[in-house]
Amino acid sequence: MKTGRLEAFSDGVLAIVITIMVLEMKAPEDTNLAGLLEVAPVFLSYLLSFIYLGIYWNNHHHLLQVTQKVNGKILWANLHLLFWLSLIPFATSWAGENFKTSEPIALYGFILLMSAIAYWLLEMQLIKFHDDNFPLKKITRRGTKEHISIIVYILSIPLAFFNSWTSIACFILVAIMWIVPDRRLEDFSK
Amino acid sequence: MKTGRLEAFSDGVLAIVITIMVLEMKAPEDTNLAGLLEVAPVFLSYLLSFIYLGIYWNNHHHLLQVTQKVNGKILWANLHLLFWLSLIPFATSWAGENFKTSEPIALYGFILLMSAIAYWLLEMQLIKFHDDNFPLKKITRRGTKEHISIIVYILSIPLAFFNSWTSIACFILVAIMWIVPDRRLEDFSK
Amino acid sequence: MKTGRLEAFSDGVLAIVITIMVLEMKAPEDTNLAGLLEVAPVFLSYLLSFIYLGIYWNNHHHLLQVTQKVNGKILWANLHLLFWLSLIPFATSWAGENFKTSEPIALYGFILLMSAIAYWLLEMQLIKFHDDNFPLKKITRRGTKEHISIIVYILSIPLAFFNSWTSIACFILVAIMWIVPDRRLEDFSK
Amino acid sequence: MKTGRLEAFSDGVLAIVITIMVLEMKAPEDTNLAGLLEVAPVFLSYLLSFIYLGIYWNNHHHLLQVTQKVNGKILWANLHLLFWLSLIPFATSWAGENFKTSEPIALYGFILLMSAIAYWLLEMQLIKFHDDNFPLKKITRRGTKEHISIIVYILSIPLAFFNSWTSIACFILVAIMWIVPDRRLEDFSK
Repeated sequence: MKTGRLEAFSDGVLAIVITIMVLEMKAPEDTNLAGLLEVAPVFLSYLLSFIYLGIYWNNHHHLLQVTQKVNGKILWANLHLLFWLSLIPFATSWAGENFKTSEPIALYGFILLMSAIAYWLLEMQLIKFHDDNFPLKKITRRGTKEHISIIVYILSIPLAFFNSWTSIACFILVAIMWIVPDRRLEDFSK
Repeated sequence: MKTGRLEAFSDGVLAIVITIMVLEMKAPEDTNLAGLLEVAPVFLSYLLSFIYLGIYWNNHHHLLQVTQKVNGKILWANLHLLFWLSLIPFATSWAGENFKTSEPIALYGFILLMSAIAYWLLEMQLIKFHDDNFPLKKITRRGTKEHISIIVYILSIPLAFFNSWTSIACFILVAIMWIVPDRRLEDFSK
Repeated sequence: MKTGRLEAFSDGVLAIVITIMVLEMKAPEDTNLAGLLEVAPVFLSYLLSFIYLGIYWNNHHHLLQVTQKVNGKILWANLHLLFWLSLIPFATSWAGENFKTSEPIALYGFILLMSAIAYWLLEMQLIKFHDDNFPLKKITRRGTKEHISIIVYILSIPLAFFNSWTSIACFILVAIMWIVPDRRLEDFSK
Repeated sequence: MKTGRLEAFSDGVLAIVITIMVLEMKAPEDTNLAGLLEVAPVFLSYLLSFIYLGIYWNNHHHLLQVTQKVNGKILWANLHLLFWLSLIPFATSWAGENFKTSEPIALYGFILLMSAIAYWLLEMQLIKFHDDNFPLKKITRRGTKEHISIIVYILSIPLAFFNSWTSIACFILVAIMWIVPDRRLEDFSK
């Protein structure tokens, strides 16, 4: 099987997930600056989640760019990734309204952790299905960024119960680390 | 007519259907584990429906992979399938909130039954429009999985009025049976 | 310009419009057959609108199939069509909840009328931009179906103020007339 | 990297953004003309935003038409544009319900300003990545329309605090100026 429809379906789901979050930002009843400031936490959580989903779309794009063929297991590994990413709007909405509370922030970290694991499982399935010359094989041998992210996400969950701000700092740090697109894959897909 | 736009439109509808369900999961007002547990039934019904829609997308993908051309009747058979699948979020929402009640679970089974019938009608239209070498023709001759599913769905509707859990067990069993992608079609579409 | 992205964007908008209507069908609070019957009018209006949007998608598909190139005016004629179609969920929701009242049914007829006019304008722009061998040119010379539909829609608006059921009958009749795909175009796009 | 998936993802996001605005138009409770007139301001703000997003989609389409390749920075410049465009439904909803109040209209102007800047940054990244024969290079040298728009948007923000109608007039004027598709790019993409 070719990758065309896998990409099209993933683009569709990611485009929807990235935009439905904005539906959570209800127009405030106050029509002044105070009304706008009320939605500020929801706006900032939307911004962070938009960046995260942008990162996933970018990396997914790079990943499929070097992929030549897919099988049934890869389709399911991809759906598994989309499942966790589709929960980001829910976690964003809960965490955006309650950013000083432990549980919503811990849940946000948990969803990010599961998404990172799902992405890594997708990479594994892609490597398994391609031969030794598959560029991804060489790249993921040193998956430093992936390892750091997963460790930081794991830490962010208990940290949320001490101070939710430290967890939020974790999420921002990982996002900054990833905003730089994965040059290793970009070189191959030129 | 070629299959390109049929696939693109179906991908679009399925991507939307699979993600709008998550809009039903409203951020709980309680910001603790109890609040999260409140949405657990809705979450589990979302998970089940996500898997079902994933199965349909996978099989639809495999089906169109071996298809060379479409006509007007096939476009309508496809729209008919999308219609029933588009009702899954509604049934999921009703059943997720009332999983111990008979009617919502019976409705969920009914929507699954109609989707399965619609999928089978689409297969029939595709076979009718292609010649004898069409791989689907040989495959559907033994459509064991399809037959079992339809029978289990039919049974699940009256069963919901005795005990809704037995119907839910039916749905889970059929899902597991289908999660293994249809190897018969996958072989042809390599 | 080629037609690829015009088709992709139209598919996206139509896929969303056709599925967001289902969001209006809120899970009823009663968990029995009575609760389900409450949503019956909304369900039937959803079914009718789904069929209408399916007809538009089908005909749009056939139309673009015979189109070789587009220009800026065609892009806007297409956006104009998508604008009126995007109002169908709003009209469906209002008419579905108040199917015995004149104004919502008249509005539904008005939106269908404007959509039909917008489709016809799109055809005109496509014909203007192509040369004399353009298949659409020969086909639309006899645009009987288009003319009948527009006349029936115009009639349905005042009729709604006498008896809303006669207008609803008009909508169903036109839908049945169009469900048969446009064989004239289908022949050309083989 | 090729432009295919960038276009597909942008089409998806724009298609969703342009259609979710219609969800804000709730079916009025009154079932007469008065009920319909109640939603008139929301409808007119939807119309204006639909036109704005249509302009962006059209220009984005023309822009990518002349683009041959993209890199990571371009993907992010594009996501940045989509981010501001995704806020248009929120600003539309707030401004549509409070079109006589300063702050919502000023916010609407601010979102339009940021979108225009984001579009201009995307153009810059595309020019930077292509060689001297890139048609966009010659075109944007005289970017009169772009400059006028940005100046008008900047003016519309303080103007909203004197009289919100003058700002609304600004938005309408810029929209009219842009509805004429960018002939300069259209000529190149034939």
